[in-house]
Amino acid sequence: MSDEKRRIALISTGGTIEKTYDPLSGVLANQVSVLDVMLTKIQTQGVELVRVPLMNKDSLDMSEPDHTLIANTALSMGETHDGVVVVHGTDRLALTGERICQVAGNDPPVPIVLTGAMQPYALRTTDSIQNLTEALLAVQLVPRGVYVAMHNRVLAFPGVVKDTEAGIFTGGTRFRS
Amino acid sequence: MSDEKRRIALISTGGTIEKTYDPLSGVLANQVSVLDVMLTKIQTQGVELVRVPLMNKDSLDMSEPDHTLIANTALSMGETHDGVVVVHGTDRLALTGERICQVAGNDPPVPIVLTGAMQPYALRTTDSIQNLTEALLAVQLVPRGVYVAMHNRVLAFPGVVKDTEAGIFTGGTRFRS
Amino acid sequence: MSDEKRRIALISTGGTIEKTYDPLSGVLANQVSVLDVMLTKIQTQGVELVRVPLMNKDSLDMSEPDHTLIANTALSMGETHDGVVVVHGTDRLALTGERICQVAGNDPPVPIVLTGAMQPYALRTTDSIQNLTEALLAVQLVPRGVYVAMHNRVLAFPGVVKDTEAGIFTGGTRFRS
Amino acid sequence: MSDEKRRIALISTGGTIEKTYDPLSGVLANQVSVLDVMLTKIQTQGVELVRVPLMNKDSLDMSEPDHTLIANTALSMGETHDGVVVVHGTDRLALTGERICQVAGNDPPVPIVLTGAMQPYALRTTDSIQNLTEALLAVQLVPRGVYVAMHNRVLAFPGVVKDTEAGIFTGGTRFRS
Repeated sequence: MSDEKRRIALISTGGTIEKTYDPLSGVLANQVSVLDVMLTKIQTQGVELVRVPLMNKDSLDMSEPDHTLIANTALSMGETHDGVVVVHGTDRLALTGERICQVAGNDPPVPIVLTGAMQPYALRTTDSIQNLTEALLAVQLVPRGVYVAMHNRVLAFPGVVKDTEAGIFTGGTRFRS
Repeated sequence: MSDEKRRIALISTGGTIEKTYDPLSGVLANQVSVLDVMLTKIQTQGVELVRVPLMNKDSLDMSEPDHTLIANTALSMGETHDGVVVVHGTDRLALTGERICQVAGNDPPVPIVLTGAMQPYALRTTDSIQNLTEALLAVQLVPRGVYVAMHNRVLAFPGVVKDTEAGIFTGGTRFRS
Repeated sequence: MSDEKRRIALISTGGTIEKTYDPLSGVLANQVSVLDVMLTKIQTQGVELVRVPLMNKDSLDMSEPDHTLIANTALSMGETHDGVVVVHGTDRLALTGERICQVAGNDPPVPIVLTGAMQPYALRTTDSIQNLTEALLAVQLVPRGVYVAMHNRVLAFPGVVKDTEAGIFTGGTRFRS
Repeated sequence: MSDEKRRIALISTGGTIEKTYDPLSGVLANQVSVLDVMLTKIQTQGVELVRVPLMNKDSLDMSEPDHTLIANTALSMGETHDGVVVVHGTDRLALTGERICQVAGNDPPVPIVLTGAMQPYALRTTDSIQNLTEALLAVQLVPRGVYVAMHNRVLAFPGVVKDTEAGIFTGGTRFRS
């Protein structure tokens, strides 16, 4: 039926997208999750979201066990949902993407879409709402697999890498229906 | 290659999404196209856009020849592009969608994705950026066909209708990869 | 003491500044007061506000008794507060300003500052926050009298008129300390 | 005449208000002046602005000669303008305010109003537009002297200090007409 909602697990792990500003110290940091605030800016008629606030870390501070924990959580949620979206710092997003592929033997049970942002939601020029919008749509449109959705492009793992100079993702396989 | 851009024709026809406010008369109306302003708010790394400013009408003012003109233009652009996005007033969007299906014999050459908004870009609570983001992503992810992408959901024509009380689209076929 | 807050009565009467958008009918109208939402966007350390939601009308719909009611309410609140701010539709704002002067015999007990907006708060290009900010500051800085504060300028009644072509106020006496 | 514009010198020195975000390094810093962008968000019918981009520093990095340079520039511009607004980092804003008082022998030729922000313009929750609006209005309404205008309050030097815990200014003399 066209009005049925896909059940999507939305895992948050932190990253630039969730950084907030502390006026007294004057710095941007991962303090509180703002993902739920972001969700109030988007109309999500196609999905029913199950929020999984896993951690709130700058991905530069993630350890090997962190990547494995995220991979295991995504795959575990995939067993009982129609898709999984993971919000993640961009610096090590590709590392988590590869880990999910490895653990799943390149055959995850559902579409798993990672996303993040180059500019925090707190900034007026943020790309966070665009990227979250794209991840929440792509997870309904692509076949099972592991992907990054950002800046109007969906790339399939393995092989995706961050171009740190351009601030974009590249490599992997461009999805084509 | 993952960095190749899809060539997408972006046809604007007006509608609520493009309404602007005239402070002297105090009303919202289709006067100038704001689609190019909207595009500056989105990072479009996956597509190369070819802009086709066809008309700028409240869709309630569209005539039968208008619907046919939009359908013919969309199909014609589809011959030479990887996909087509049509920005349209929501009141008669479904009528144009059906017209494209009819003219194309239900077999358009590329994905053709219609979108619009319930609230003009001019409003701080607008859904226009979300919907434009979704249309520009969906056109890369769905197989050839005619669709509406709005509010986190992609529906395939024929059979889509506007639920005017809820302000959403329903019916048609929910896309599933 | 520098930290003492001035007690200011904030009377709302409607006008463009408070118009909201109804997505289903597609028009801007005075339905609910958004002044309290606007106040969350401003830091008001200098004043303690006493809200008086008097009416919510497009000023073009105001009757003579409406103008008199607003004037009487402003002067009455002036007896027990350090100042009064009146949010008003711009089309007949000057008429209310003159009425207050008449009723007060050109000698109101405190500063009474009127303001409004050419573009509703609901619009992303609104001037409402600027004008409300100015009225809430001017009421602390000017001597007793009746004023309009808008668009970076404070004009004293009597003699203020709206230049409907330019969408600004002119005439009256420019305040100079 | 009520439509005459006051000639105001607008001196920018940097501070939090002008910090911009670098997506690649992930930090907020004083790189380019955004004051001219901010001015496009405000209608300034009461003033004719003469822009003086003096420096672009976090005020924590200001030296004694910096404070003296700002003070001398403000007083010098005051000789030929109707008022002076100085945009400044809040951490050492009070030090510059006192310096202006000293150099001017507590008798500056025109109103000199300092302002800044606790949150950069780049942030969606910024107080920069409010504070700039207030400074550009206060400079037209207060008598000659040195002031800080921020967060709906105008305080006169000498004696103003920053309450670093609360993120506000206090002390000095509260202006009352």
